[in-house]
Amino acid sequence: MDERTTIAEELRARVGRSAFHRTFGMEVDEASRGEVVLGWEAREEHLNLQGLVHGGVLATLLDTAMGLAIRSALEPGRRHVTIEMGVHYLRPAHPGRLRARGRVARIGREIAFADAEVVDAQDRVLARATGTFSVGHERG
Amino acid sequence: MDERTTIAEELRARVGRSAFHRTFGMEVDEASRGEVVLGWEAREEHLNLQGLVHGGVLATLLDTAMGLAIRSALEPGRRHVTIEMGVHYLRPAHPGRLRARGRVARIGREIAFADAEVVDAQDRVLARATGTFSVGHERG
Amino acid sequence: MDERTTIAEELRARVGRSAFHRTFGMEVDEASRGEVVLGWEAREEHLNLQGLVHGGVLATLLDTAMGLAIRSALEPGRRHVTIEMGVHYLRPAHPGRLRARGRVARIGREIAFADAEVVDAQDRVLARATGTFSVGHERG
Amino acid sequence: MDERTTIAEELRARVGRSAFHRTFGMEVDEASRGEVVLGWEAREEHLNLQGLVHGGVLATLLDTAMGLAIRSALEPGRRHVTIEMGVHYLRPAHPGRLRARGRVARIGREIAFADAEVVDAQDRVLARATGTFSVGHERG
Repeated sequence: MDERTTIAEELRARVGRSAFHRTFGMEVDEASRGEVVLGWEAREEHLNLQGLVHGGVLATLLDTAMGLAIRSALEPGRRHVTIEMGVHYLRPAHPGRLRARGRVARIGREIAFADAEVVDAQDRVLARATGTFSVGHERG
Repeated sequence: MDERTTIAEELRARVGRSAFHRTFGMEVDEASRGEVVLGWEAREEHLNLQGLVHGGVLATLLDTAMGLAIRSALEPGRRHVTIEMGVHYLRPAHPGRLRARGRVARIGREIAFADAEVVDAQDRVLARATGTFSVGHERG
Repeated sequence: MDERTTIAEELRARVGRSAFHRTFGMEVDEASRGEVVLGWEAREEHLNLQGLVHGGVLATLLDTAMGLAIRSALEPGRRHVTIEMGVHYLRPAHPGRLRARGRVARIGREIAFADAEVVDAQDRVLARATGTFSVGHERG
Repeated sequence: MDERTTIAEELRARVGRSAFHRTFGMEVDEASRGEVVLGWEAREEHLNLQGLVHGGVLATLLDTAMGLAIRSALEPGRRHVTIEMGVHYLRPAHPGRLRARGRVARIGREIAFADAEVVDAQDRVLARATGTFSVGHERG
């Protein structure tokens, strides 16, 4: 297997071990070192009263895409914990197939930066985010 | 009924009409004009691989608390749509009973500002957020 | 003159009318519809106690780059006022020649989104920002 | 001298050593452990084309108020470097006397959180910010 395939398989295994991610229903479509694309279906139960995807749900997708992008670029033994995240909602998100692309901006010794965007089937950006992560070594 | 009770009842009815909010399981504990307190139980299915409440779930709570605080202070016929939200994660959030307090900072003609915090049973702040909302008149 | 030249000239005239921008010393290096590149020299008086460019100064550059990018894409008669801005500091900024690139993400009827980055002479990203702007029609 | 006076004196000495802060003209009005109030006069050279205080200038005040609040609560030998800052502009800022209040939200082993607000002479909030800081031990 090439590196891309290995990275994608590792992230899929990771997502598969998490009750939260399984329930949420997101899939790792593509991954390479420092970049990841998630696929996800927005359904009735994700909609707010206006019939649009709830902003918290989009924030969840964006946070996960950034976190996995960072995970894909970290060596073993380092953690990644979200310190802060800023989300902008550019366009209303209707039910249907969405994708979230996460990307590393910089990984330092203790702090990492990433960004992500959620796009619809026409590749229009519906929401995007930047985030800061703590990526020091796990303490055991 | 006094104003507080009326506001709380209106927000409860609103949350009750939303499939998303019912599934998520949050309750309106208290509300007055411009302030709201939500109660919510973090369960197994909300946890990430480290056994902590997923950051996207906390963002959902914070966004909802801010949105309802603004709703409680808006006259009928005005919308409230999240434009952007920034979340800071101050402490790890363990499963159990959490509360989210949302508060209006300013409501203008077209833009409103709010903030919110999630606290645990010991009233420690686990996460907090600021947000910007579009609050113009609904177009019909 | 082609459109690019016209846009750059208009932004230069605008910056030239502002006491703040003249004092600050930034120049419009390039501009097209929705994008702008500013040049600026970080000098002694911009440094904090660690000898690095003060974060507020970088925020000023980023805010200006985003604002001018939006200005370059707005028709006459519309205002652009910063509602909120989030800045990430990726690397320490040393004195010397810096550039700030601003770019429109979306311009709506009332709200616009932009982002910007400050890069050094080696084109390394030192800081970046996202921002939200109010862009409704001027009231007279 | 009591602790408050000592803290204020230390911050004043710190600000006095910085060319940037002297040029900018801010003063430490009050300080206690984890809180600081700065005074500052917005003059002609700080105004944008609409005659309002430039958003980057307010960001500078907010960043400084947060940084000094954290400094006031840190033991010697620890650094404080801004990682990220989010600023909301609630009301237009006119020339005149402004104050900026900074406050620590949490100081951890490596990361600290703070917030700040800029108020006018009538104590109305014109802008506010939240920030994240790296506060590990200086290496040397």
